[in-house]
Amino acid sequence: MNLLIAFAIAAAILALATAYFKGLWVYKQPQGTDEMKQISHAIQDGAKAFLKREYKVLGAVIITVAALLALFNKGEVRLVAAAFICGSIFSGLAGVIGMRVATFSNARTANAAQKSLNAALKVAFNGGSVMGLSVVGLSLLGISSLFMLFVKLFGADQESLTLTVLPIITGFSLGASLVALFARVGGGIYTKAADVGADLVGKVEAGIPEDDARNPATIADNVGDNVGDVAGMGADLFESYSGAIISAVVIGASAAAAGGNIMLAVLPFILAAAGIIASVFGNFIVRTHEKGNPQSALNRGMYLAAILFAAAAYPIIMRFSPDVFSFSGEYYKAGGVYAAVVAGLACGVLIGLITDYYTAEGKACTAEIAQSSKSGAATNIISGLGVGMLSTMWPAVFIAAAIILSYKFSGLYGVAIAGLGMLSTTGIQLAVDAYGPIADNAGGIAQMAKMKPEVRKRTDRLDAVGNTTAAIGKGFAIGSAALTALALFEAYRVAANIGQVDMANPYIMAGLFVGAMLPFLFSALAMRAVGSAANDMVQEVRRQFRQNSGILQGTATPNYARCVDISTKSAIKKMLLPALIGVLAPALTGLIFGKDMLCGLVIGTTITGVMLALFMANAGGAWDNAKKHIEKTEGGKGSEQHKAAVIGDTVGDPFKDTAGPSLNVLMKLIAIVSLTIAPILNLIQPLIK
Amino acid sequence: MNLLIAFAIAAAILALATAYFKGLWVYKQPQGTDEMKQISHAIQDGAKAFLKREYKVLGAVIITVAALLALFNKGEVRLVAAAFICGSIFSGLAGVIGMRVATFSNARTANAAQKSLNAALKVAFNGGSVMGLSVVGLSLLGISSLFMLFVKLFGADQESLTLTVLPIITGFSLGASLVALFARVGGGIYTKAADVGADLVGKVEAGIPEDDARNPATIADNVGDNVGDVAGMGADLFESYSGAIISAVVIGASAAAAGGNIMLAVLPFILAAAGIIASVFGNFIVRTHEKGNPQSALNRGMYLAAILFAAAAYPIIMRFSPDVFSFSGEYYKAGGVYAAVVAGLACGVLIGLITDYYTAEGKACTAEIAQSSKSGAATNIISGLGVGMLSTMWPAVFIAAAIILSYKFSGLYGVAIAGLGMLSTTGIQLAVDAYGPIADNAGGIAQMAKMKPEVRKRTDRLDAVGNTTAAIGKGFAIGSAALTALALFEAYRVAANIGQVDMANPYIMAGLFVGAMLPFLFSALAMRAVGSAANDMVQEVRRQFRQNSGILQGTATPNYARCVDISTKSAIKKMLLPALIGVLAPALTGLIFGKDMLCGLVIGTTITGVMLALFMANAGGAWDNAKKHIEKTEGGKGSEQHKAAVIGDTVGDPFKDTAGPSLNVLMKLIAIVSLTIAPILNLIQPLIK
Repeated sequence: MNLLIAFAIAAAILALATAYFKGLWVYKQPQGTDEMKQISHAIQDGAKAFLKREYKVLGAVIITVAALLALFNKGEVRLVAAAFICGSIFSGLAGVIGMRVATFSNARTANAAQKSLNAALKVAFNGGSVMGLSVVGLSLLGISSLFMLFVKLFGADQESLTLTVLPIITGFSLGASLVALFARVGGGIYTKAADVGADLVGKVEAGIPEDDARNPATIADNVGDNVGDVAGMGADLFESYSGAIISAVVIGASAAAAGGNIMLAVLPFILAAAGIIASVFGNFIVRTHEKGNPQSALNRGMYLAAILFAAAAYPIIMRFSPDVFSFSGEYYKAGGVYAAVVAGLACGVLIGLITDYYTAEGKACTAEIAQSSKSGAATNIISGLGVGMLSTMWPAVFIAAAIILSYKFSGLYGVAIAGLGMLSTTGIQLAVDAYGPIADNAGGIAQMAKMKPEVRKRTDRLDAVGNTTAAIGKGFAIGSAALTALALFEAYRVAANIGQVDMANPYIMAGLFVGAMLPFLFSALAMRAVGSAANDMVQEVRRQFRQNSGILQGTATPNYARCVDISTKSAIKKMLLPALIGVLAPALTGLIFGKDMLCGLVIGTTITGVMLALFMANAGGAWDNAKKHIEKTEGGKGSEQHKAAVIGDTVGDPFKDTAGPSLNVLMKLIAIVSLTIAPILNLIQPLIK
Repeated sequence: MNLLIAFAIAAAILALATAYFKGLWVYKQPQGTDEMKQISHAIQDGAKAFLKREYKVLGAVIITVAALLALFNKGEVRLVAAAFICGSIFSGLAGVIGMRVATFSNARTANAAQKSLNAALKVAFNGGSVMGLSVVGLSLLGISSLFMLFVKLFGADQESLTLTVLPIITGFSLGASLVALFARVGGGIYTKAADVGADLVGKVEAGIPEDDARNPATIADNVGDNVGDVAGMGADLFESYSGAIISAVVIGASAAAAGGNIMLAVLPFILAAAGIIASVFGNFIVRTHEKGNPQSALNRGMYLAAILFAAAAYPIIMRFSPDVFSFSGEYYKAGGVYAAVVAGLACGVLIGLITDYYTAEGKACTAEIAQSSKSGAATNIISGLGVGMLSTMWPAVFIAAAIILSYKFSGLYGVAIAGLGMLSTTGIQLAVDAYGPIADNAGGIAQMAKMKPEVRKRTDRLDAVGNTTAAIGKGFAIGSAALTALALFEAYRVAANIGQVDMANPYIMAGLFVGAMLPFLFSALAMRAVGSAANDMVQEVRRQFRQNSGILQGTATPNYARCVDISTKSAIKKMLLPALIGVLAPALTGLIFGKDMLCGLVIGTTITGVMLALFMANAGGAWDNAKKHIEKTEGGKGSEQHKAAVIGDTVGDPFKDTAGPSLNVLMKLIAIVSLTIAPILNLIQPLIK
């Protein structure tokens, strides 16, 4: 067993080493003119300033939670506090690394775009790779090392595994979850406040182009892309990835106890390692491609990684899984475990493809929204909301099918393994996601530094690809969050010794209603936070234009730093309430009303959260691309149709970049909080029963 | 027992007799000038034409479903088809009566408004009373008579009750449900297509006032108020009311079998009868009030009915309920049953009050939306969506509390009884709801017939009260739908012999996801239907203005009938797909994937449906009143702020009048379909297992 865990650690180190060398390569690329350097540095400073403040608040929360975990748990399980701190540090570290590299890749991408489209693609994608590989590398490294350490300390026998080692390691996932919550919610508020502020006053009121250097909020806007789409998405997937591994290990250990063997708990490590190696290969494939369409280069990398992983998983499972094992009274075969992996992978790919169908520019749905924009903003909004709601259909069916199939193939263990299968190629999936904001930033720098139009054209092409990959990445993040939350829920059931979860139980039923309400409440708070933060930004930009008329004439430099500061402050202040709800709702429900109501709460939040997240992310994506569609093929900028579409796009922004993605984190967080407090709930009686 | 059921029948006849005399009284009031008569007749004809076509389509669906029910069931349970037809006819009849009276009350209300505010209130409210009392009267009459008949035929012993009589009577509720679906969805599409068409071209493009006789869509718009808000709401509550009684009887019978006595199954009839008598009293109280604020007159009637019912329920329960009974291994007392009634009543009142808080004009939330309209339509929309989402919080908590408390008080039986308690005063609640569109129509007629400004001012005051009661009524309808769906679900569990519903079962989990998706899909289809129907209407109104320039000059009469026809056709055509989904989703899930997945589906739809319905109804109400707030106290009509608010209001229309209310029906329908096919599912094996 030790050897296999060591293999996982080695794979994690391989990912980190690759990330290091890719980062070094990007760092060595020329940064361009002094002006470009200056802008890039301003973005870097803004991003650093945000992270610093965010981590300060986060640090206080983490220390509090860690103290509570140490206080309320008994015996060796108190070490969960250490694993928790470890998880939050590793996730935070991945965020810092990814964002550092992303922010120093932007000017370099713009500079490379002077040479060729493919040179720029290479810089941007390698910048994104650093984020992708750091996330999976640090996550697997952290979990495997902790597992090895605690197994050494407490033994690998059944009892110490299920009663000590795994409850402790769960803390890692909780730490990751808490960081993700702050990163997603805080980053989401930041990026949209800056974006809306920059757009409303700069583009609409003052009539200057996007990313114009005269706009005081433009640096904040570019910082926001990194804060929200790089660090936020990274932390989100760090959490999904960690949660998927840990829940598979917990359920594997319980399956081992029920009638399998310990390899069922070790298998997730090996599969994750194989996924990492496949992702590293995929990352290099994108690099080797020199000419052609950036989209197909990225797709090739992703598909290659998925195929490599699917090919490698078969011999791994056949070699290491017990040939036959029994779990909850049924018998399953090793081949069934493999089939569950494939079901998860397929579900992820299908959700990505269907997301593309609903949100991609030029396809039926966005064209329909563009069409309805002709009769004004109201019909544009209704149409976009309709598309968003409609887009929940297939993903729900795919997830339902994945659950039924993976369960048929290998029981509860299969459900957890399907989640892991879906996330196996996160290393490249996230690289592609993080590439988007780098390309976007590069375009911003090209505009601000007044580079040649062909440069901007090239970065725009890269950016357009980034929008599609971002939409697909969001669909994938939601699907994986659903399966991860479900697997964590099952792990909670196992850990809290809840046999059957009877829906007729009034506490469970009540929990379902309250749980179903939480995603709505959470989204409302996130959207209201964006509204009030954006309002502060609007006031500030107006003030600068009013008090210094040189700014709009281009003779005076606006005060970028103040805008960055406003976004940072509002984001940090406003993220606290939703974050607290995410942590306190499950904890208090469990402590006051007991394990059963908590079961209902977790499930209610998960199923409604998935639908609401799909609705919001896809409506937002569709509005965005409907606007682009009008710019290119219909009325064009300035037409009434375009104005209506801009309103839809503005509504869609907090949908797709703040509230929607935050829901991914909410579902997982509520599940992982439940799993973490399960040992406490086993010890105490609920206050009301 | 026979005597008690006869008492219920007598109470139902009392309600119908009161409705008859109130209707007669309204009919005897003067109709006003020839012009007013003409307009009123045009509205009556339009409403009749719609109902006729709707019932034709509905008839075909009902015959098909009845045939399937007779075909798939075995033995005497085949009679479920007869009860089903009975339920649909009674519900349809209530719709016809209510709408007839409502449409002949409108001109009479406008005419009475020439005399005084209170004279107008009296006519409008008595018109609404006819609807309210017909619904509860016909529902209780139908269910009690069928119960008496089938008990006479098959006996009142435990076995024939649970295996024959109750499965048959369930059909009544299914019939009501199907009519409600068509009435809500069809009526909702009709009313909003006409409204949007009239507003977009008439008010915005041609700049003529609301309800101006020159607008070709204005009659269709007024017909829509009756079709959607009177007939649709009536059918919706007919279904909730029937479902609440039947599920309480089914669960009561099962409690009787478990360790109570048959009175537990009879008690719901007596309680419903008491509620009807209390509602009749309440209706007369509103009539006796001659001077003062219309809102407080209506409130007084509602509160009086609620207090009377609460007072009467205590001795009834103490007299007829067994002192102590056991159910699912717990012991409950008669006092507990009463406490469950009170919990249900309180939950309904609280949801109404909180709805008022979120949507009423001049309160914090609508003022906030009005404020955010200053920075444009996008912020208005974001703010309204935020308020809608936020408004789910307290109702979810109230419902959860009602479930836990009523269960604590008297088990599953308590949950069903709480639902019945909430709906006990439907007779007056619905009268107040139906009063709204009558007042609205009266205002329309006053405008079209160019009556004196003071008349319009009086009808506007009545209408303003109507808007608030409509919002509260919607909240109440959603809350009652939630408890009814839940009670029906429990009845389904009992009928399908499902003991525990284990959420870890993959079929249940998959059902939860698919079920949670259905409300989104259903809303999307309803909203898209409104969009396309409204588009047809816009084209038609534009065509009439273009081809006949005399219309806008007031020298030619527009072709009202064509607009009525377009709304009717589109509504009928577009309601089919969502209606089919509502029926087929549970039926196919049950037949193909089995009882378990159907359990998950029902619960998933209920919990997500409640949240989505609250979100949509309250966002829509808040947008509407934010616009009114701006008209009265802020920027005023024509300001940029008002324009932004009009866009929000237009988005809110299909939210609050089409998709939102249709979800109430969807949840109940899915639960009642499951309950009805339970005997079939007990006989066959699912296709996939």
